[in-house]
Amino acid sequence: MIETLKKLKEFLGDGSFPLHEPNFSQEEEKCVLDCIKTGWVSSVGKYVDQFERDLEKYTGCKKAVVVMNGTSALHIAYLCAGVMPKDEVLCPSLTFVATANAIRYCNAIPHFVEIEDQTLGIDPEKLRKYLCGIGVVRNNRLINKETNRNISALVVTHIFGHPSKILEIKSVCDEFGIALIEDAAEALGSFYEGTHVGNFGKCSALSFNGNKIITTGGGGAILTNDDELGIKIKHITTTAKIAHPWEYVHDQLGFNYRMPNINAALGCAQLAKIEDFILRKRKIASIYKDIFKAQKDFYFMEEPEHARSNYWLNAIILKKPDANFLNDIVKITNQEKIHSRPIWKPLHLLSYFQNNPRMNLSLTEEMEKRIINLPSSPGLIK
Amino acid sequence: MIETLKKLKEFLGDGSFPLHEPNFSQEEEKCVLDCIKTGWVSSVGKYVDQFERDLEKYTGCKKAVVVMNGTSALHIAYLCAGVMPKDEVLCPSLTFVATANAIRYCNAIPHFVEIEDQTLGIDPEKLRKYLCGIGVVRNNRLINKETNRNISALVVTHIFGHPSKILEIKSVCDEFGIALIEDAAEALGSFYEGTHVGNFGKCSALSFNGNKIITTGGGGAILTNDDELGIKIKHITTTAKIAHPWEYVHDQLGFNYRMPNINAALGCAQLAKIEDFILRKRKIASIYKDIFKAQKDFYFMEEPEHARSNYWLNAIILKKPDANFLNDIVKITNQEKIHSRPIWKPLHLLSYFQNNPRMNLSLTEEMEKRIINLPSSPGLIK
Repeated sequence: MIETLKKLKEFLGDGSFPLHEPNFSQEEEKCVLDCIKTGWVSSVGKYVDQFERDLEKYTGCKKAVVVMNGTSALHIAYLCAGVMPKDEVLCPSLTFVATANAIRYCNAIPHFVEIEDQTLGIDPEKLRKYLCGIGVVRNNRLINKETNRNISALVVTHIFGHPSKILEIKSVCDEFGIALIEDAAEALGSFYEGTHVGNFGKCSALSFNGNKIITTGGGGAILTNDDELGIKIKHITTTAKIAHPWEYVHDQLGFNYRMPNINAALGCAQLAKIEDFILRKRKIASIYKDIFKAQKDFYFMEEPEHARSNYWLNAIILKKPDANFLNDIVKITNQEKIHSRPIWKPLHLLSYFQNNPRMNLSLTEEMEKRIINLPSSPGLIK
Repeated sequence: MIETLKKLKEFLGDGSFPLHEPNFSQEEEKCVLDCIKTGWVSSVGKYVDQFERDLEKYTGCKKAVVVMNGTSALHIAYLCAGVMPKDEVLCPSLTFVATANAIRYCNAIPHFVEIEDQTLGIDPEKLRKYLCGIGVVRNNRLINKETNRNISALVVTHIFGHPSKILEIKSVCDEFGIALIEDAAEALGSFYEGTHVGNFGKCSALSFNGNKIITTGGGGAILTNDDELGIKIKHITTTAKIAHPWEYVHDQLGFNYRMPNINAALGCAQLAKIEDFILRKRKIASIYKDIFKAQKDFYFMEEPEHARSNYWLNAIILKKPDANFLNDIVKITNQEKIHSRPIWKPLHLLSYFQNNPRMNLSLTEEMEKRIINLPSSPGLIK
């Protein structure tokens, strides 16, 4: 362990190492100054349009709509995928809280499901068995026999940028007639069998928060391959206002989730560099893999088969759950200004989700005591 | 009319004149570049804290919490003022749609009330009479006898920056035991009897959208004079995360409404100049007043007694409702690139609010055919 910490410090050098910090150059400064000099800083402007088109080109999704952050993107993704009040939405418990909170914003109910240990995403096999047990299909809708509520959708999270077993999960969704949503907040730049994540779901969400692979300060996007849905998404994220030079008519309850032009300007400059960031992040991952290869107690998390991961956040995984050992590693590394952290507390253990429906989550609970994230900024190497 | 248009063009000069555009200088560029150069663009950073403290100092409110926009500020203001699902919230119909939409985000019901013609804000006398008629107090709660729902709050909008009859309205709220919320989205810099608007309500909302007196691209703030509520507001707008260097524990359903540091940086630079903006805007208002003084068919809207208005958007008001005449003025001015617009469509006339409870709104409906806004950017004069 001491030997490993020494190697880690040799790689990182002197200084303080946050988990993930942004990487800017003159291009970002130029775009942002352009907004200020022209006065176009707010919710209409050329960078908003450009960033949306650039995201479509990069991800291969037909329609991208940029919004204020990943949480608002998730909210709209659920709404537009058809989640209705009182529905249940199948959701991993091992994810950032926004994945489940945004279900609640739709007045729907997160129903927590188990993960598998390769990708840390939803386990398609366990899911199928579980749904066969608790579910019944009535009038083409999946009903939870225990609660008598409609299970209308499922959300996958591509944890740390590693694609979930998305095709197998999609197949379960299709089998039971439920909508698939991808929480790809961490996974811009990650591909599964050559297809960018976010293309498999009915709607998907991206995040450009300050800790993500590219940042707009705060920001997010909804992706869809359904043209009509794309128009609807743009409409309800921009207050559902009917286009007119001076009249203010809104035709449904909308949201003011618009990304300001000044933030989109940052996004354009950042997205242009994403492949360089990913190259560097994959190199960092390979260095970590090498540093940790001699360890007996834990291993370095690698990208799944058939995937190219963006390696957003690097992680080591203890072979056995051990909260004390995990805390020791986190404390020692943080003392050395190598910022590390355990994974999020599983959501079903938070007070306000503790009574939510769920399947057996023993692996999820185990993983809370096994996973540690490590500094992953692209700036760690040149 | 032709004579007046001539005078208007003499004042404005050549060019295109939007209703309200931002005014930036080197200070904004400096603050934003500082964010990019230091990497602190996202939801934690020195400008977020500074902007909150600067807003507290300027408004005299004990606590300001900055968020993504005025709509999210309103949502949180309602929640923290105690609005519960299925409650009714008294709300003007002559306001931007966000005032009522944010009530719906709380799963509560906008109940539309009438305005008076001096400030275009809620009419306190008509309100009192109306509540005496439809309301009954049971267990210290005001109940709408017709719907049997709790009327828990009232929101005033300070239209175009002109303070409503806030003390008289507050007195009605106190009499009936309902919470007062101020939608001060348009009114940063407006004072009533020497007190900045936003200080009268339990919670209040500001907006820094691109068309407002100061802008952060997109942004807003919640104001309160209740210390405990201030802490709660900060907590639930930042995902209700319990402070810890690496643990992710959230103790209630929270929102990700944080204003990014790069937007707050703009806000700091803008707020420092607000008194200069107001001086200029008041001068513009006095020029308009002079231009329109000879008109027989309409008059220029002036600040109410006992108030200092920021004159956010200047308006002329037809003496009699006349949709055709109003449309002619809007069309002619827009053809001349003098951007004007009628006031928003009253909200109770939108399809999705048409069945909401409401009092007689004849003046509101009349005003839709009487009000025209005119270019009001501080940059119109030096």
